[in-house]
Amino acid sequence: MTAQVYKWIGTRPKRPDGADKVTGRARFGADFNMPGQLIGRVLRSPHPHAVIKSIDTSAAAALPGVRAVVTAADFPEQENLIVPAGEMQVNLRDVTRTIMAREKVLYEGHPVAAVAAASEAIAKQALALIKVEYALLPHVIDVEEAMKDGAPILHDHIRTDGVQPVPTKPSNIAKRIENLKGDVAKGFAEAEVVIERKYTTAPVHQAYIEPHACLASAAEDGQVSVWTTTQGHFQVRGFCSRLLQIETSQIRVTPSEIGGGFGGKTVVYLEPVAIRLSQKSGKPVKMVMTREEVFRASGPAPGGAMTVKIGAKKDGRIVAADITIALQAGAFPGSPIGPACWCSMACYDVDNIRVVGFDVVSNRPKVAAYRAPGAPISSFAVESTIDILAQELGMDPIDLRLKNAAMKGTKTHYGPVFDRIGLVECLEAAKNSAHYKSPVKPGHARGIAAGFWFNVGADSSAAAHVGEDGTVTVISGNPDIGGSRASLALMAAEELGVDYDKVRAVIADTHSIGFNFVTGGSRVTFATGMAVVNATKDAIKELRVRAAKIWGVDPEGVVWEGGKARPAGHNVGEFEPLTLAQIAAQAGKTGGPINGHAQLNAQGAGPGFGVHIADVRVDAETGHVVIDRYTAVQDVGTAIHPSYVEGQLQGGAVQGIGWALNEEYIYNAKGHLDNAGFLDYRIPVASDLPMIETILVEVPNPHHPYGVRGVGEVPIVPPLATIANAVARACGTRMTSLPISPPRLSAALDAAPKLAAE
Amino acid sequence: MTAQVYKWIGTRPKRPDGADKVTGRARFGADFNMPGQLIGRVLRSPHPHAVIKSIDTSAAAALPGVRAVVTAADFPEQENLIVPAGEMQVNLRDVTRTIMAREKVLYEGHPVAAVAAASEAIAKQALALIKVEYALLPHVIDVEEAMKDGAPILHDHIRTDGVQPVPTKPSNIAKRIENLKGDVAKGFAEAEVVIERKYTTAPVHQAYIEPHACLASAAEDGQVSVWTTTQGHFQVRGFCSRLLQIETSQIRVTPSEIGGGFGGKTVVYLEPVAIRLSQKSGKPVKMVMTREEVFRASGPAPGGAMTVKIGAKKDGRIVAADITIALQAGAFPGSPIGPACWCSMACYDVDNIRVVGFDVVSNRPKVAAYRAPGAPISSFAVESTIDILAQELGMDPIDLRLKNAAMKGTKTHYGPVFDRIGLVECLEAAKNSAHYKSPVKPGHARGIAAGFWFNVGADSSAAAHVGEDGTVTVISGNPDIGGSRASLALMAAEELGVDYDKVRAVIADTHSIGFNFVTGGSRVTFATGMAVVNATKDAIKELRVRAAKIWGVDPEGVVWEGGKARPAGHNVGEFEPLTLAQIAAQAGKTGGPINGHAQLNAQGAGPGFGVHIADVRVDAETGHVVIDRYTAVQDVGTAIHPSYVEGQLQGGAVQGIGWALNEEYIYNAKGHLDNAGFLDYRIPVASDLPMIETILVEVPNPHHPYGVRGVGEVPIVPPLATIANAVARACGTRMTSLPISPPRLSAALDAAPKLAAE
Repeated sequence: MTAQVYKWIGTRPKRPDGADKVTGRARFGADFNMPGQLIGRVLRSPHPHAVIKSIDTSAAAALPGVRAVVTAADFPEQENLIVPAGEMQVNLRDVTRTIMAREKVLYEGHPVAAVAAASEAIAKQALALIKVEYALLPHVIDVEEAMKDGAPILHDHIRTDGVQPVPTKPSNIAKRIENLKGDVAKGFAEAEVVIERKYTTAPVHQAYIEPHACLASAAEDGQVSVWTTTQGHFQVRGFCSRLLQIETSQIRVTPSEIGGGFGGKTVVYLEPVAIRLSQKSGKPVKMVMTREEVFRASGPAPGGAMTVKIGAKKDGRIVAADITIALQAGAFPGSPIGPACWCSMACYDVDNIRVVGFDVVSNRPKVAAYRAPGAPISSFAVESTIDILAQELGMDPIDLRLKNAAMKGTKTHYGPVFDRIGLVECLEAAKNSAHYKSPVKPGHARGIAAGFWFNVGADSSAAAHVGEDGTVTVISGNPDIGGSRASLALMAAEELGVDYDKVRAVIADTHSIGFNFVTGGSRVTFATGMAVVNATKDAIKELRVRAAKIWGVDPEGVVWEGGKARPAGHNVGEFEPLTLAQIAAQAGKTGGPINGHAQLNAQGAGPGFGVHIADVRVDAETGHVVIDRYTAVQDVGTAIHPSYVEGQLQGGAVQGIGWALNEEYIYNAKGHLDNAGFLDYRIPVASDLPMIETILVEVPNPHHPYGVRGVGEVPIVPPLATIANAVARACGTRMTSLPISPPRLSAALDAAPKLAAE
Repeated sequence: MTAQVYKWIGTRPKRPDGADKVTGRARFGADFNMPGQLIGRVLRSPHPHAVIKSIDTSAAAALPGVRAVVTAADFPEQENLIVPAGEMQVNLRDVTRTIMAREKVLYEGHPVAAVAAASEAIAKQALALIKVEYALLPHVIDVEEAMKDGAPILHDHIRTDGVQPVPTKPSNIAKRIENLKGDVAKGFAEAEVVIERKYTTAPVHQAYIEPHACLASAAEDGQVSVWTTTQGHFQVRGFCSRLLQIETSQIRVTPSEIGGGFGGKTVVYLEPVAIRLSQKSGKPVKMVMTREEVFRASGPAPGGAMTVKIGAKKDGRIVAADITIALQAGAFPGSPIGPACWCSMACYDVDNIRVVGFDVVSNRPKVAAYRAPGAPISSFAVESTIDILAQELGMDPIDLRLKNAAMKGTKTHYGPVFDRIGLVECLEAAKNSAHYKSPVKPGHARGIAAGFWFNVGADSSAAAHVGEDGTVTVISGNPDIGGSRASLALMAAEELGVDYDKVRAVIADTHSIGFNFVTGGSRVTFATGMAVVNATKDAIKELRVRAAKIWGVDPEGVVWEGGKARPAGHNVGEFEPLTLAQIAAQAGKTGGPINGHAQLNAQGAGPGFGVHIADVRVDAETGHVVIDRYTAVQDVGTAIHPSYVEGQLQGGAVQGIGWALNEEYIYNAKGHLDNAGFLDYRIPVASDLPMIETILVEVPNPHHPYGVRGVGEVPIVPPLATIANAVARACGTRMTSLPISPPRLSAALDAAPKLAAE
């Protein structure tokens, strides 16, 4: 859709990390080692809720080979305040309790102590020697149960935030937020059709294949080095700095290659513990979580409970929406309830909207970000309701959405007014797609849903260094989780006018490049990309200065075109154009190295929209849902490297399908997680899925030099409702509770046999 | 001598690398390892000069566990031209033959082939299986022998460069240079006293404790990573790029901590071989030299043969000098003959000077830089002759030098006119020193000598990154061989007006910072320091912009003073000053990360001068020289961190003392080195030496913001003559040939018993 013709942007060169990853040369979190390193292991609570009466580590400390033992006493207490850590706003009181339980344990798997020992075997032996005396407390797992009066209370100091007057009683509701646009009562009064439903979703894990892993080395003079798998090494630095009261300039964090993060690697679990163990032992300490620890004690996405009430005219015009969303935050406040509320109705230009959200604690691991945090949950509820409305009105579900679609100028219920966006284009592309135009196979049904993510900008630093042979390295500080090295190098090559293979994008450690906010929110190709483009422009400015020096003319007399410095006009004089390599070869003589730099807080992240289509078949006997065909359509702004963009759409769709069909945390009555492993926590595998087809719609973001919009979050938003809508149309049973797993669906079908037989 | 008062500059904080080095945590060249790495070993020539008729590696390649074998055939031929490699000017034809012999071997130890194998044992076994057929040629070791007609010729293509008409016959003289000032014949005609002597010095090794070591990993897509001990990782990148035809942006070189270099680690030996072995084997390859390999095949300083003729008036005024210097370059051209000629007479303001230099090849390893390359050799000859002149004239040797000392405005014989320099101040400080004023003990004698090094500037890139807590990292790309992390951080702290411990200086790899020329020539605290000061100024400019934003005023209305942003005057408004930390905490909101950058080709390196004083006693029976007291006086510009500066003076003096008294390469008649180990190649140890006293004279360099002059080279220049002059005065025997080792001195004493008895 963009008329702009680029030389490199939009091409599909080989991945810069490809060779290392397929040959096993790439180093992930667990692949760093130092001579003399110890192995750190964590003792975790077997109880979902209990007071820690005492911890006796003396026997563990006395075990030969044990070099250090830590408990909460080794970490300073923190104020109960939201403060910045690496520019992320967090409550450090809660974070320090997440890394090590203090007065209470709040979930099964909550860290209680940790040891560093000469071997893993000794470390495990030592854990068994730590005596913890617990006083058990009643627990609560479910979000709705946790909100009830009389529920076991996790935190005595929590009074529902944002409610006036401040409640006198403690509560598990940590926060109530409300987005309001127009007059909802008036809207519903005008409605000719009103649909209201209640929905729930299960918490799901990001299920990155690589577990959390790090190596920390603390020197006697206070300097700390950390190698870790993370989405944000500056974030790790920021957290460790605050939690351990070490200045940022004393902590050097080097990120490994990352075996998946999806939001779950934007926080810290092991790093502060490993540093403290290293400080106490005087040795480097390596810590790697087991898969079970990842499930029990790293942040999943929240489960949610929602009611959605939508009113419309008979022609399909939606006039009112009233939505309530309660998200389970886990043991400490901080679910993505804000984004869940914002994203719920962002696809629609509706005059009267109220969205109320609750952030609720319960005895589960604290949630972490997971791709478009909160959005898939609220979107599942809204898009299911819209589908019911379409069925009620007898309208094509795409047409219904087109009638109400947000567009440039739409004022959202949470504040922003959209600039140029591409939802209408996506709906039209979906409607015109081969998939949507194809007949639905007998015994199958088709579902669709839309989805939204606002995308983010924030802080990035970048540099472009011209080597003496004129090849270029582009430096930034964001771990590459979705192809950002390729996208950054492509933009730099385009800007410089040189071949892509002359540009190498590199991720520098926290000491070697300026601050970069975490890789997340789909910000890197947008925000860090903008910094890279600016750094490249800065280098080009210097290249013009050097060419001017070589020619003896004013820098204003030199333009940069097609990878060469050229005289800006005939009055400058006649000079042979100078290539980057020619100018670079004379860098020393003309003033020194040629480098460009930029740092910025990127504004203008382009909102992203997607529309997914699924054809499914339901095995009425087993409740097994078979996906026959699946298409993801998305406005990707400008697809810098289309293969990576398609991969983002495919990966997001597959994770959303897992969320829809199978994934859930199964807790037993004792508050223990029963399925802490990939055998029982079932993510989709290749044999479960058709090829995910993709349609890239390109509506350039007007606020980025190359039109970039974030693309990584949106694709996980539509699948939940897409699948639920297809299943409802396939078997007549509307599943309002996820996952639509075989036992749940077959039970629902059994309960409504007549509808299922229709 | 500087009136400027600084807060941090001139203080002596703890070394930033201290804790890691004393605890063994610091990682040196051999401390990097990767999973699956192979061990690389080099097969070396047993002959000093031979044609390689054939190399058969088939048996080695077939040995189980051997993964790759390379010979010269694996490295591309290079043009016989001086070209830049990492901005160092080199003849790549010769460099590629240094890393791997091509048609001939030119010295014992010359690499002929290399293998990479699963273990060191297998690698050694494989070397034994490589069959090399040699045709032996006559060889020549000594520089004067090599210059003679009829000497064995190393390179048929060498015709004495710079001589017109170009000789038709090949020669071992690679180059003749001449520096001329005034009219030498006229000068000598005016002279009332003329002294002429002939001198020789032995080649000596830099004797860094850490041998050359590296680890290289080459990926299938062409990307190469190298970890190595080097004085210049950009230099390693540059060499490998040219030798292996890999673009600089494809090679990431990370420097280790360095266990000494002294100039000897500015070139490559193992790195290109390890990369090629890695490319051929598909595995990381680690290579570490043995001490014997270091001696036989890495670059020592050259040996020299000189004649010095000096004419003076009876009052001590020197009126003419005629000097000839021949330096042994080793197997390929490129001795430091230029600097040797320049430094020979730079201490003296003399009207008529001619210095002729010869660069001579012979069958020894190619020389490398060694602290003030060339200067100690020529200075030994000149300063010995000046001492003889002082004796002849009955003048105090300091007074004689004061009478002729170079100063601001002196035009040197090699071109430059000196700006403000501190030789006179050093001579006066020496004269007024407690040491010089103390009586000479019975049986002892005192020698003095002066020395000079011009110091260098060249290319540096630096950055200053402000963390979110307001602590600062200062980034550059020069391995820290003499305390540059401390000096850079001190200058940044001074500039910022914050405490030193809030600033951390870091060395980034070649991918993470712009180009930095090699750590050498005593350039880092000067040139990279200037880049750091400029980068810090750039950050301060941004800090002022941010403070202005916070206050809502124009940036011109903000000044930076005492580590805080303050209103520039009352008309700006009344605002509480903002600290670095306060501004940093708001970086995101006020525009993003706060970083400063600079890159430059530093001009105006301040020449350095030193004067050393030694009191010695000679054991007439054994020829053993005992140093009773030793003082090094030097104009150090501004001593940024005086302890490090004193350490440079002490280290340089000790190395010069070793050169004077003991160190030499001992070749037997077969051209084999007989003393390739620290047992037989004797460097001074603590028990050989008194405490080296230091006197820091501070005449700030007017071309550096903090007055920095390089300090690392000068101190190795005076000791050779200082010791020889003291010995001559102690025993009446003037040793014109170094080293003054016990066997040589006792032989000389035996040959001149009467003088020795005086």
